[in-house]
Amino acid sequence: MEAIRNQQIDEALRTFRDLNRELADLRSIASTLNWDQETTMPPAGTPFRANQDATLATLYHQKLTSPQYGAILEQLEEEELDEWNRVSLREARRAYDKATRVPEALVGELAETCSMAYEAWVEARQKSDLAHFSPWLEKIIHLKRQQAHCLVEGDVPYDAMLDEYEPKMTVARLDPLLDTLRPLLTELVERIRLSPHQPDKGLLRGRFTQERQLELGTTVITAMGFDWKAGRLDVSPHPFCCGLNPGDVRITTRYSEEDFSVGFFGIVHEAGHALYEQGLQAERFGEPACETISLGVHESQSRLWEIFVGRSRPFWEYWFPRLIDAFPESFASVALEDFLHAVNQVEPSLIRVDADEVTYGLHVILRYEIEKALFEDSLEIRDVEGVWNQKMEEYLGLTPPDAARGVLQDVHWSHGLFGYFPTYLLGTLYASQLFQQAREDIPDLETQIARGEMLQLLEWLRQKVHRHGKRYSADELLRQVTGRAPDAACFLEYLNRKYSELYRLE
Amino acid sequence: MEAIRNQQIDEALRTFRDLNRELADLRSIASTLNWDQETTMPPAGTPFRANQDATLATLYHQKLTSPQYGAILEQLEEEELDEWNRVSLREARRAYDKATRVPEALVGELAETCSMAYEAWVEARQKSDLAHFSPWLEKIIHLKRQQAHCLVEGDVPYDAMLDEYEPKMTVARLDPLLDTLRPLLTELVERIRLSPHQPDKGLLRGRFTQERQLELGTTVITAMGFDWKAGRLDVSPHPFCCGLNPGDVRITTRYSEEDFSVGFFGIVHEAGHALYEQGLQAERFGEPACETISLGVHESQSRLWEIFVGRSRPFWEYWFPRLIDAFPESFASVALEDFLHAVNQVEPSLIRVDADEVTYGLHVILRYEIEKALFEDSLEIRDVEGVWNQKMEEYLGLTPPDAARGVLQDVHWSHGLFGYFPTYLLGTLYASQLFQQAREDIPDLETQIARGEMLQLLEWLRQKVHRHGKRYSADELLRQVTGRAPDAACFLEYLNRKYSELYRLE
Repeated sequence: MEAIRNQQIDEALRTFRDLNRELADLRSIASTLNWDQETTMPPAGTPFRANQDATLATLYHQKLTSPQYGAILEQLEEEELDEWNRVSLREARRAYDKATRVPEALVGELAETCSMAYEAWVEARQKSDLAHFSPWLEKIIHLKRQQAHCLVEGDVPYDAMLDEYEPKMTVARLDPLLDTLRPLLTELVERIRLSPHQPDKGLLRGRFTQERQLELGTTVITAMGFDWKAGRLDVSPHPFCCGLNPGDVRITTRYSEEDFSVGFFGIVHEAGHALYEQGLQAERFGEPACETISLGVHESQSRLWEIFVGRSRPFWEYWFPRLIDAFPESFASVALEDFLHAVNQVEPSLIRVDADEVTYGLHVILRYEIEKALFEDSLEIRDVEGVWNQKMEEYLGLTPPDAARGVLQDVHWSHGLFGYFPTYLLGTLYASQLFQQAREDIPDLETQIARGEMLQLLEWLRQKVHRHGKRYSADELLRQVTGRAPDAACFLEYLNRKYSELYRLE
Repeated sequence: MEAIRNQQIDEALRTFRDLNRELADLRSIASTLNWDQETTMPPAGTPFRANQDATLATLYHQKLTSPQYGAILEQLEEEELDEWNRVSLREARRAYDKATRVPEALVGELAETCSMAYEAWVEARQKSDLAHFSPWLEKIIHLKRQQAHCLVEGDVPYDAMLDEYEPKMTVARLDPLLDTLRPLLTELVERIRLSPHQPDKGLLRGRFTQERQLELGTTVITAMGFDWKAGRLDVSPHPFCCGLNPGDVRITTRYSEEDFSVGFFGIVHEAGHALYEQGLQAERFGEPACETISLGVHESQSRLWEIFVGRSRPFWEYWFPRLIDAFPESFASVALEDFLHAVNQVEPSLIRVDADEVTYGLHVILRYEIEKALFEDSLEIRDVEGVWNQKMEEYLGLTPPDAARGVLQDVHWSHGLFGYFPTYLLGTLYASQLFQQAREDIPDLETQIARGEMLQLLEWLRQKVHRHGKRYSADELLRQVTGRAPDAACFLEYLNRKYSELYRLE
């Protein structure tokens, strides 16, 4: 009897694995098509590709919500499984429930609405007139709230938005974090503004050929441990990282020939994402347990490399001479101190994607507060622009001259991506805690980095973060690795230490 | 009653169209993955991609052989349809029958065998030892004959192989064509060999940067009408054309920095394929009627541009000065006459893919005769190499020094591609007839080409060939456009005229 029963479980597990692998293959194919569209596809291919994407999405949805998959989940939920299978089952259940709970009609209406809303947003931004977009924004919020009601466990609909990108994150957990950060960031920005010791902002500008930038970027991410047998670096208008599978992780960047820092930090940032994807367990590819945890943890990997390594003094002690070799006309007569100050300059600005590490969080907090209010129904669409501008003034001391440089600057809302912005900031908070722990675990870490050696740090990340896949939530992972839940203290300490020195504060 | 009936037909046609579109989307996705693998994918992606391909192939097979699709075909076959739908129905039936008639076990065994046979072939070629490959060749022939028995209508199993790539082509139709060609080609090769007027074979060699080759190739295929909004040109080890859909047709080439002709004629050849794909009816994409006719007709388009245009005197009257501009060191002191003779040099050689237009057909005929004998069971595997070498001696006066440069040179058999080689030669025969007709229909065609104008020729091909999709078989198309069934006479006449002049024969 026991033998037969074990055989049945084995068979169910095999079916579960096969179905998961099929789903993973379809996701990987969809990512390949997406990468191709962003980097390669000629323009006349667009309508055909849209059809392919839709065909694939339908097939995927059919597979994920099939009665066969549902039955396997139920069957396995009765059994005692090992940890990996337990995690896979939990994650599969999560995906299955999300896919089955929202009525297909609503999914379809959302997809259609977002597709038209995106066109409207493009036009609204061009004309810098929110009125072109607000009816669509209103409709999307309406539909997203319906979606939230199908998904949410508690009574805060916006929690369903957060949970989509940062599983288990809630308003109740996020509010205290951001409430701590906001006044302290605003205060630090103000102190920095008032400092008489300002960097030379023109110092990073010059003439930088794309070829040399690519060469330098390639050298740096090779030293970080980027595996070229399992990855590529290409050009696209919006830099991104696309992990098709652990054997094929593709990053892109865009180059400015006037400012080397755009391409450089872009490459290091995306390579941070890529190292996470390359570090997932290849032999378990397809198992839901073996994917990245959340957007926040993903962003922690890119921010750790871009900021905590890439904008640090030890890093440039090694790489600044190499930057001079690459661009002697621009940097041969620049002192390392001045260069470091310039790549860490802080200045309130209107556009989130151009923001430095101190002001960036305030851009996120502003968006989070507006989104939350929209979902709570405590903010009307017609008041969004006013609230945006008022918060910009309050947090950053700036007033957008037009909607294009204000409320219309981000594409996210037109795609229905609410609850997404907070993950950018969470990533930085996680990164500050992880990097602090890495410094404790690897006592000579900064000496290594100052010698251009970064592979022990990568190995630490592999062991502490990458290998675990989805075993832990972000919260559990942070507790596990650093002994503390995600909080704002570590990041604030880091900022105060770093910027007090750079701007000679107090 | 009539109204209800019409409504039912409309609905069936709509379902038929949707299912066809879904199948076309999946094929297009598979092609994208294939293009990506040949040009872009990093090596560690290989095992993951193999899995994706298999997942997609299974989904495709399930869709194509679904009872729903079969039922729609049966329902529509009872109805009076317009011509396009009739053609689509005929082609859909053909695909459905092919997919359902061969048992899945046999399909699986073939796929597995070929995958291992390919590895064995790679090793056998490396070691130049057929013995490593012959057990696999034997097994593949055995399985392909089983496949043929499921598919063939008459009593010649090899007909099923031909029909796969060149629908309606049979041994009975092909034998007389090739029997006519073989002695006359052999005789022409011999006369050319004996001519005292030989070209300067070193004339095409020199130093050619890839950048300039790309520039020139781009200019030429732009003049041919290649649509860059609906296509790309990249590099890959084996040049190919990949038509994802009429809005996205990608060609590749490989460059030799010592011999410009490798890359140049490669680009023109693949662009010929691409113009066919770009010329299919975009608005009918997905309908089985709107695809390319056959590999032979596809090859006719590439050969027409590569040989009948690209190696002709009028073509070089315009392009030779431009070639000199691109590579003055190599060509500034060369006379057009000598250049023309050099790009049309004829010389028996061991390797098919390097063969000129006169000897190429003999390479194909040799392979066809061996394949046919293997399927008729009149040739044993152990005798294949001997027969190959004996025919090489007989047709081209050469003896392969080893199997790698003889019987093991082509990958096709290891993939189970029997009946494929003849389409290379058929393409050239079709091209000669089509080009002859184009000269009659456009009286000043050669004057146009000598002015660098090639768009009227493209328009002629669009109207006569591309627009029709699969409306006609190759045979019907040729009769329709040229008034004659495919034959050898036109090609032989062309060769005799051209090479008599170049080599001053008789």
